[in-house]
Amino acid sequence: MNNVAIIGPGAVGSTIAFDLRDASLNVKLLGRRNETLHYYSNNALDTKYQLDVCALNEYHETVDFLFITVKIPQLDTVLTSYQHLLHKNTIIILAQNGHGQLHKFDHPYVYQAVVYISGQKTGNTITHYRDHKLILDQNAHTQALHQCISNSSLNIELTTDIDNAIWYKLLVNLAINSVTALTRSTASVLEVPGIKKLCEQLLLEGINIAKAEHVHFEPNIVNTILNIYDGYPAEMGTSMYYDIVDGRSLEIDGIQGYLFYKARKHHLNTPILDTIYHLLLAQQK
Amino acid sequence: MNNVAIIGPGAVGSTIAFDLRDASLNVKLLGRRNETLHYYSNNALDTKYQLDVCALNEYHETVDFLFITVKIPQLDTVLTSYQHLLHKNTIIILAQNGHGQLHKFDHPYVYQAVVYISGQKTGNTITHYRDHKLILDQNAHTQALHQCISNSSLNIELTTDIDNAIWYKLLVNLAINSVTALTRSTASVLEVPGIKKLCEQLLLEGINIAKAEHVHFEPNIVNTILNIYDGYPAEMGTSMYYDIVDGRSLEIDGIQGYLFYKARKHHLNTPILDTIYHLLLAQQK
Repeated sequence: MNNVAIIGPGAVGSTIAFDLRDASLNVKLLGRRNETLHYYSNNALDTKYQLDVCALNEYHETVDFLFITVKIPQLDTVLTSYQHLLHKNTIIILAQNGHGQLHKFDHPYVYQAVVYISGQKTGNTITHYRDHKLILDQNAHTQALHQCISNSSLNIELTTDIDNAIWYKLLVNLAINSVTALTRSTASVLEVPGIKKLCEQLLLEGINIAKAEHVHFEPNIVNTILNIYDGYPAEMGTSMYYDIVDGRSLEIDGIQGYLFYKARKHHLNTPILDTIYHLLLAQQK
Repeated sequence: MNNVAIIGPGAVGSTIAFDLRDASLNVKLLGRRNETLHYYSNNALDTKYQLDVCALNEYHETVDFLFITVKIPQLDTVLTSYQHLLHKNTIIILAQNGHGQLHKFDHPYVYQAVVYISGQKTGNTITHYRDHKLILDQNAHTQALHQCISNSSLNIELTTDIDNAIWYKLLVNLAINSVTALTRSTASVLEVPGIKKLCEQLLLEGINIAKAEHVHFEPNIVNTILNIYDGYPAEMGTSMYYDIVDGRSLEIDGIQGYLFYKARKHHLNTPILDTIYHLLLAQQK
């Protein structure tokens, strides 16, 4: 039986742990301390589950598959304290928003997942809203993982164009996270005159950066993303909105900052991104 | 003896009323309600003065000179309730930050003052920090005012290029108000990497708009303004910073919004201003 560990008992990590219960795997959810979480799956508030979290520094098995699901601001801390979980063939899945963090690993088998799992953690209660999907590069390692979890409700989708999947999610996050965080508003901010236009302009800058990185999108991608935004409930907050309102660190290094430095590398003119990035950077904890 | 009224018992209005005490004028400070304010002049906290405020709707004299010192978001309300103070030769001085509000008056003699008076109101206590200066267009009306107040500590400076004085103050306000408000930080935000550069780029857009309005500045004006910012104490908040943090209406109509619409009129490309204006607009109360 394969050993699987998940570092990061937030909404994403808890959902992966919960979804893998039924697979024939030895699954451990790891965090800063031993604790028990309450978990609601698929927004069904009538059934409360318990999830046990084990302290990372008290778990001494090595694992075959390791999911790291902490947000970017916590990644550096995890990277100083997780080596004891690894054997030489451990496969690591980095399941977090944003991009540009893989170079921080010195382990050979690390893959960026594009995460489509939505939920929220409040205190020690996690409410999973919807989706169970991770998109990964298709290769021998991820196929092995796919095989192992095939009996579970976690949906791993393998793609031959992971860059496209990563950049698509990056762009979707870029505009809505920026405007909600900087205005400290939920998705209702899209109704303010000029804000949708601002999203559009910011997305155009992002698509230009993607192109310079050889990631090409259809011309109507901007409309596709704006249509996704139109489908958001007005009261929906984004991850970066909740982080700024609650005074937590922001994931800007992997989203706006990642794009800002790529734009500099390619000598692109991105005045809106530059403005937004620095206004957020000034509020980084 | 000339009748003078000041509408707006904030830091600017109270200082004008206080400074005019010694002139041979009949001076009234008007506000929403009858009240008594505590007033400290020139940051001398050892001497507390009292200033009486009379309710605007209970004062029935007409006045020769009327200072309107409310902030832009309150101006529309004042304009619906101040007509009883006017006779046909009343001279109105609009002493507030920003520009673009004069068209709202149907009275013939209204002049925009550029205000250099700094202070703060907390509850019913006003602390005047420094400066007593209003800059006005030089004409027969403002010369008459200048004559009347010559025995007071209010300093009225007349200029033959009021547009330049207005736009200069507008530009000084533009960048520092925008970055402090949007990052909810005091002037310490200028130390964050990229923020001074952002101010510089925003000022360049502003100078371009001024130019299209036939207001020309020396090429080194940007450095002059950035040097002014460098002189600010790190803990200094701006007017717009205090407004956004305290949940009050923002003066954007007369600063960022005024410039935004001028830029559209002249078909100028101002991506940073556009971004900043809409991010502030979304937080307007």
